[in-house]
Amino acid sequence: MAGSPAEAGGSHLMTESSRSLKEKCGLVGIYGHEKAAELAYLGLFSLQHRGEESAGIAVSDGKCLHTHKALGLVGDIFKPEVLKQLPGRLAIGHVRYSTTGSTLLKNAQPITVDYSRGQIAVAHNGNLVNAKRLRDELEAYGSIFASTVDSEIIVHLMARPESKTREECLLKAVRQLEGAYCFVMLSEDELIGIRDPHGFRPLCLGKLEDAYVLASETCALDLIHAQYIRDIEPGEVLIINRKGLKSLYPFRDVEVKKSFCIFEHVYFSRPDSHVFGESVAKVRERLGEILAKEHPAQADIVVPVPDSGNFAALGFSRVSGIPFSFGFTRNHYIGRTFILPEQSTREFKVRIKLNPLRDMIEGKRVVIVDDSIVRGNTSKSRVKELRLAGAKEVHMRVSCPPHRFPCYYGIDFPKSSELIANNYSFDEIKKFLDVDSLGYLSEDGLLAAVTAFPKEQYCTACFSGRYSTELGDDADKFYFENQRAGS
Amino acid sequence: MAGSPAEAGGSHLMTESSRSLKEKCGLVGIYGHEKAAELAYLGLFSLQHRGEESAGIAVSDGKCLHTHKALGLVGDIFKPEVLKQLPGRLAIGHVRYSTTGSTLLKNAQPITVDYSRGQIAVAHNGNLVNAKRLRDELEAYGSIFASTVDSEIIVHLMARPESKTREECLLKAVRQLEGAYCFVMLSEDELIGIRDPHGFRPLCLGKLEDAYVLASETCALDLIHAQYIRDIEPGEVLIINRKGLKSLYPFRDVEVKKSFCIFEHVYFSRPDSHVFGESVAKVRERLGEILAKEHPAQADIVVPVPDSGNFAALGFSRVSGIPFSFGFTRNHYIGRTFILPEQSTREFKVRIKLNPLRDMIEGKRVVIVDDSIVRGNTSKSRVKELRLAGAKEVHMRVSCPPHRFPCYYGIDFPKSSELIANNYSFDEIKKFLDVDSLGYLSEDGLLAAVTAFPKEQYCTACFSGRYSTELGDDADKFYFENQRAGS
Amino acid sequence: MAGSPAEAGGSHLMTESSRSLKEKCGLVGIYGHEKAAELAYLGLFSLQHRGEESAGIAVSDGKCLHTHKALGLVGDIFKPEVLKQLPGRLAIGHVRYSTTGSTLLKNAQPITVDYSRGQIAVAHNGNLVNAKRLRDELEAYGSIFASTVDSEIIVHLMARPESKTREECLLKAVRQLEGAYCFVMLSEDELIGIRDPHGFRPLCLGKLEDAYVLASETCALDLIHAQYIRDIEPGEVLIINRKGLKSLYPFRDVEVKKSFCIFEHVYFSRPDSHVFGESVAKVRERLGEILAKEHPAQADIVVPVPDSGNFAALGFSRVSGIPFSFGFTRNHYIGRTFILPEQSTREFKVRIKLNPLRDMIEGKRVVIVDDSIVRGNTSKSRVKELRLAGAKEVHMRVSCPPHRFPCYYGIDFPKSSELIANNYSFDEIKKFLDVDSLGYLSEDGLLAAVTAFPKEQYCTACFSGRYSTELGDDADKFYFENQRAGS
Amino acid sequence: MAGSPAEAGGSHLMTESSRSLKEKCGLVGIYGHEKAAELAYLGLFSLQHRGEESAGIAVSDGKCLHTHKALGLVGDIFKPEVLKQLPGRLAIGHVRYSTTGSTLLKNAQPITVDYSRGQIAVAHNGNLVNAKRLRDELEAYGSIFASTVDSEIIVHLMARPESKTREECLLKAVRQLEGAYCFVMLSEDELIGIRDPHGFRPLCLGKLEDAYVLASETCALDLIHAQYIRDIEPGEVLIINRKGLKSLYPFRDVEVKKSFCIFEHVYFSRPDSHVFGESVAKVRERLGEILAKEHPAQADIVVPVPDSGNFAALGFSRVSGIPFSFGFTRNHYIGRTFILPEQSTREFKVRIKLNPLRDMIEGKRVVIVDDSIVRGNTSKSRVKELRLAGAKEVHMRVSCPPHRFPCYYGIDFPKSSELIANNYSFDEIKKFLDVDSLGYLSEDGLLAAVTAFPKEQYCTACFSGRYSTELGDDADKFYFENQRAGS
Repeated sequence: MAGSPAEAGGSHLMTESSRSLKEKCGLVGIYGHEKAAELAYLGLFSLQHRGEESAGIAVSDGKCLHTHKALGLVGDIFKPEVLKQLPGRLAIGHVRYSTTGSTLLKNAQPITVDYSRGQIAVAHNGNLVNAKRLRDELEAYGSIFASTVDSEIIVHLMARPESKTREECLLKAVRQLEGAYCFVMLSEDELIGIRDPHGFRPLCLGKLEDAYVLASETCALDLIHAQYIRDIEPGEVLIINRKGLKSLYPFRDVEVKKSFCIFEHVYFSRPDSHVFGESVAKVRERLGEILAKEHPAQADIVVPVPDSGNFAALGFSRVSGIPFSFGFTRNHYIGRTFILPEQSTREFKVRIKLNPLRDMIEGKRVVIVDDSIVRGNTSKSRVKELRLAGAKEVHMRVSCPPHRFPCYYGIDFPKSSELIANNYSFDEIKKFLDVDSLGYLSEDGLLAAVTAFPKEQYCTACFSGRYSTELGDDADKFYFENQRAGS
Repeated sequence: MAGSPAEAGGSHLMTESSRSLKEKCGLVGIYGHEKAAELAYLGLFSLQHRGEESAGIAVSDGKCLHTHKALGLVGDIFKPEVLKQLPGRLAIGHVRYSTTGSTLLKNAQPITVDYSRGQIAVAHNGNLVNAKRLRDELEAYGSIFASTVDSEIIVHLMARPESKTREECLLKAVRQLEGAYCFVMLSEDELIGIRDPHGFRPLCLGKLEDAYVLASETCALDLIHAQYIRDIEPGEVLIINRKGLKSLYPFRDVEVKKSFCIFEHVYFSRPDSHVFGESVAKVRERLGEILAKEHPAQADIVVPVPDSGNFAALGFSRVSGIPFSFGFTRNHYIGRTFILPEQSTREFKVRIKLNPLRDMIEGKRVVIVDDSIVRGNTSKSRVKELRLAGAKEVHMRVSCPPHRFPCYYGIDFPKSSELIANNYSFDEIKKFLDVDSLGYLSEDGLLAAVTAFPKEQYCTACFSGRYSTELGDDADKFYFENQRAGS
Repeated sequence: MAGSPAEAGGSHLMTESSRSLKEKCGLVGIYGHEKAAELAYLGLFSLQHRGEESAGIAVSDGKCLHTHKALGLVGDIFKPEVLKQLPGRLAIGHVRYSTTGSTLLKNAQPITVDYSRGQIAVAHNGNLVNAKRLRDELEAYGSIFASTVDSEIIVHLMARPESKTREECLLKAVRQLEGAYCFVMLSEDELIGIRDPHGFRPLCLGKLEDAYVLASETCALDLIHAQYIRDIEPGEVLIINRKGLKSLYPFRDVEVKKSFCIFEHVYFSRPDSHVFGESVAKVRERLGEILAKEHPAQADIVVPVPDSGNFAALGFSRVSGIPFSFGFTRNHYIGRTFILPEQSTREFKVRIKLNPLRDMIEGKRVVIVDDSIVRGNTSKSRVKELRLAGAKEVHMRVSCPPHRFPCYYGIDFPKSSELIANNYSFDEIKKFLDVDSLGYLSEDGLLAAVTAFPKEQYCTACFSGRYSTELGDDADKFYFENQRAGS
Repeated sequence: MAGSPAEAGGSHLMTESSRSLKEKCGLVGIYGHEKAAELAYLGLFSLQHRGEESAGIAVSDGKCLHTHKALGLVGDIFKPEVLKQLPGRLAIGHVRYSTTGSTLLKNAQPITVDYSRGQIAVAHNGNLVNAKRLRDELEAYGSIFASTVDSEIIVHLMARPESKTREECLLKAVRQLEGAYCFVMLSEDELIGIRDPHGFRPLCLGKLEDAYVLASETCALDLIHAQYIRDIEPGEVLIINRKGLKSLYPFRDVEVKKSFCIFEHVYFSRPDSHVFGESVAKVRERLGEILAKEHPAQADIVVPVPDSGNFAALGFSRVSGIPFSFGFTRNHYIGRTFILPEQSTREFKVRIKLNPLRDMIEGKRVVIVDDSIVRGNTSKSRVKELRLAGAKEVHMRVSCPPHRFPCYYGIDFPKSSELIANNYSFDEIKKFLDVDSLGYLSEDGLLAAVTAFPKEQYCTACFSGRYSTELGDDADKFYFENQRAGS
């Protein structure tokens, strides 16, 4: 997957790490460790793939909160001298992707505010589908909004004076939210983790000595040598304080359809994470195995698009018996700083990141495996490179179905009109990509690869258009679109 | 108060421009010019002395507001590529000083928010004396606060749903404020300037072709070749929009004592500005003239502390007949970047900024003139330098009375306990400074130097302790102290 | 040796790209293209793995040379605005590794000087074994040295006044050099490529439209879509100018043993390059295949250390029939900026770069394949991670023999005393690494994997101690050691 | 004086500190102090006005030299962490101005090299008039040149193998130099100061406890609290080592005309320095006094162009009896970072640095005093500002004669064709500047202001065209011109 948001001015900027489909965010929380800020930093570092635009950490020293957030990558923002100035045993952290064009510091998280009950810092992963309505109501009530992020909405809801206790006001606020959300929150003396009742996004709990850790993915626990305990349950509000852990279930009496985002397995989560009860890497191997059964090929080698297609390609190879081979060399030096100098040399762009290994490819019938085709341009140029390197045939296999629908639950797909599967027929796509054969995994195949929960508990809306929530009135949709375009 | 880490390492940082007494802020506003952001930038540049910590500009392109603010100096923040991204014909700008130690981006202004009536950006110069009470009331009502600056309070007040029109809600909000304030505000299509009924801080109106300009000092008008029109009156709310200028007077029916901050003339404002109806440079010359009458000296030369004592020293010289002489050379390269390398060489610190001119001083009886003595340490080291350079006698003359009281109206004096005039008797100060004679201008002398308004209309609270407003209950005072210490 | 301070603070700096064995340099040259500097930049970018410390480009606009070089990565140094200031149709470029601790700008290349015949820029890859003697002779003659790099020596030799023509002086200079060297040189109107008669380091010639390209590896040709023509021959001096190509052979009458550095295949060169007549990736697969025959294992999966062991592991898997599996996830965000915050969290260091995939490893007998073991610490921690992830057995396989001897031909090995194979017996190494079995490829196996030239034409000195040149007198050796230690 | 060298790209860059006439360099040397690098840093800081482009420090730790140099201001380059890495008790330092357009790191000094006698670092202030011939001879001999600075020439001369001792080779080298030069040199164990026999540029000796200090101006001694001892004599080679001080006089037997650069007094040196035996500030006051006698004016106030005209204006005021007044306010925030945003706002440029004080000027007949008129544009705009501020008459007085001739001794004047005095008659200049009267100090008046040496011992070549040395053949002149234009 190539493609990348430019910085101001850097129109030719290409970054290795940019992903064309963007998760809204990654979260981490630490309770009760003297190096809370450092652990949050390391956790965020391992969740960097969930948001490359901005990063922030808020800590509590028991009396008040301190927050540092900025645009940029985790490692650039949190230098040792910055971490030193974030004292305390409680911390939350957040990484966030960038909306196109403008990178806005005001939307960086955590959001930290004073309100009648003290101070609170909030970070969010997901997308509320009733955000517009809630904002309108709050503004009518007199609220002001300094950002366009959902975290600010829940803070306003919690600040409403009607409730008597902090707990009550939290539950009341949560019950008004609709859509996909995980929150980590920090007050002077509490760490709180919240997951929406559908369970769209992952959030897990770990333990490191006496400290508790919350994280979007288990790879964050691994890095800091924390023990995985369990996932936060859909609809759970977990409060961690001096008295220990306490779980509240504000949606206990409501029937809510589980909707685990299957694209976390296909694309977003790191392969070394456990998400929704199973290994992401294993799921990806199975996706490749099923893909080989659904769409076999007569070929000499199976080649992954590195590194996104690695596991699926290996699975494909095992089932098909076609030898796995590395067909591209990845340049590890492409980072934020690489800029292609001139328009006339843009033709060189394709090979900057991946150079085909001619000796592996020449004269071969090649199966190339990737995890998804979004706009199609990158795939097309990979195929072209294989042909220039002498491939006799190119068979493309994709470890998920075609993307046709927007995600309202926290993934930033391109506009529908930019999705290749919405613009072309299967045959046209095949022709556009210039492949000898093309095979997408079926939705059934996709769901066959996940084993932890019943199939109907996964959200496949971006493939099927079957959304798990009401999407609100037109205003909400309009707001949602605008939020991405205009802010 | 949530806080954020300062930049690393700068414990030895010495800046040429740092001033021991700090104005809270400087303001500029532009209505109706295609280069609004650039003009705001230039205006802020000329007001840099009113706030060196952070700077911000908000613009309106007619439909929505765009804001850029950051810690640092105006010239460092607003590079051409940044200005290019601030489109529109309306703009407001703000510079702000730093509290000691922590520099907080969250407190940078303008503050830009969405509320029920659209968007609004607000910047403030001054200090509300009822801020704590207003915040408590607003929080009880459900408001959340992301910063500790007064601008956020007025925005919350304006967002209250009770009023019917934007104008009504603005006036209602203003009437609740007590203390010293000038505001510039920007909505999608209006520029608003507000000055408190006491008139503590200056705010003036200018015209550049068809455009209107608001600025804290007239030097900002000069730089952009705008014509000075008049001062915003104490208690005036000036609204500039498509229909032209409209003035509202929310305090018309209330009797309010005028309280022009005399320290603007003594110290804060640039000498090339007109403030409160007269030339700052001229006032300073008169301060020196009166000082020479009140505290004559038998001496050979009159030497200013450059550049703060220049005009007063010249006035002193004229009246006393003692020749004016440059006694120090100022190093113009001391900027943000200069760092003294090691503790052991800190002794070199004194001469880095000003080196005495031995040939002018040796064997002479020297009158040294400065605009104020705050803690006394700097003055002491200047005297020591003069003696090392061979001065036979040193007579210090100060163009204002001793500072003894805190300012609640927007100037950041050191704590009372750090003010030398509160800790030592006159004789002790003389001894501490090691001068042969010492003369402070009297309060009467001070007031004799200003000519535009009756004497009782100037605020001299920092010298006299006679405050022009009620200072609120204990809570307010406590809050105010804490705000400075804790945030 | 004059030295210069490194950048501040980076004691914990970990870079993804740092390689424990360092090639001295990478070279590129462009003749006759209007975008010569850009092509050189792209070429250097693809050779970044050959030198991460400094990079430089010299261009000729036909009349004079312009040079830009700096410490840092290619993409950081050559921003578009820098490239714009490097006009002309001829260019050479250079990347260089850093000696530990001190990074010295003065040693960055190309070296550009004025001498009696005009201007010349020189860049070097390799290591002269008679550098000390040549420097001494030159200094006795009156030469001054501003750096410690070999390029400066050849420039001094070329500046000697005895020869009549530029060509004669070049050949005379080359004949005095002993050791490993490739040079690219640039005068106002010529591009020159030189390879030592042993052929230690690779240098190839390509063509892009009418332009000629020189490069250390063919991957640089691929990136800019240049056609590979041939390798520069050992002992060839290739002069490219208006008249076309001209090859000189200053060592034609001397018998010189060919000595192609086999470690280019094992470790240094990019897998997508052709080096010494064959594909690096193919050679690496064969290394793995032979390794599997020499050291079979009873195991469940074969896991590479990514990405260095990828091809050998695949080869091992194919021959052994043990399934290939990805056992680690690589964090692609580790770049120059990542700093581990505190000593106490250094334990987290190991997993920052590679996190083991527990689900792939748990309960398995694992073969882990890497390309080399130098000090042994990294390998040891990889094994420990596998065991923590539940591996039942760990069998380490290494695709080259143990390193025991220093390289005098351009590779920066650690001191002999730091090479694990010099300090421990095979059994001790096995115990140190905590592996169930350990297998190094034999020297015969190593040589069986390369097919382009007779076995005796490869240099294996770092394994065998059989050096291909006289190493000079003690002074030379002493100088060489010091150069690395002291500068 | 306005005007400024641009950085790459920053075409609108205006810097407070840039001077339109540029001294080639400033020098400092420290012998025998444990904080040698820090003292050198502070010394350079106080000499920053002598060279704003690059700065460098070389130290000796007794065994070898370490050098750090870079483009930029002293305070930007020598951060504490850099100074920490410059160990030793001996140091030399250098500041340098930039040639137009290109700022070249390769020309930064000190130049540090290895040669047959060890290591040596050299820094230079001045300009050799036989540089071209010496370079040609050296190149013919086999020398290579990495820079275009004169320091490299003397190093080559010293490296010539003919002499037996280091002292002999130094004296032999010095005797070959012609023109203006001060050198400070550092070997492992010696500090050397050299001043040319004409004495064009100043160099003084000071003492700080047991340490010795060399510096271009005494203000560097003041800052570090060193005691001034004496000037290095014209033609003296002062060697400071373990045995103490030793002076050699290689030109003892040659008759050489003394030629102290009078422009050091008029313009270059800091007013708080003693140069050529007397106070710069005092000389400047006398220049103003004589100017008042030569060119009296009927006026109401005397106004300096701050700060360059301060002392002369004061002198003018004293003799004429016309009151001295501050007529402009200087903006102290203009530094390297200020960039004017757009061409259309360039009209604002003039007031950015100096804003006229209307209240002082309006309705007055103004004498404006400056130290020189070079191109005339800046003076013209100052006059225009005074008229816009309401001046009734403007009388310009200049404290030196018109500049008509190039300086071959170390000052970088604009090309002759750009000097206003070469292009216009006196009346035309008056008209161009739009002044009511204009008065330049006469050459006699100029020489009357200096008192330490007989008049004929001062160089006034830039006014009179009477050069103190032969200027070499055409080649030398051509070389000299080219060096500035082309490198």
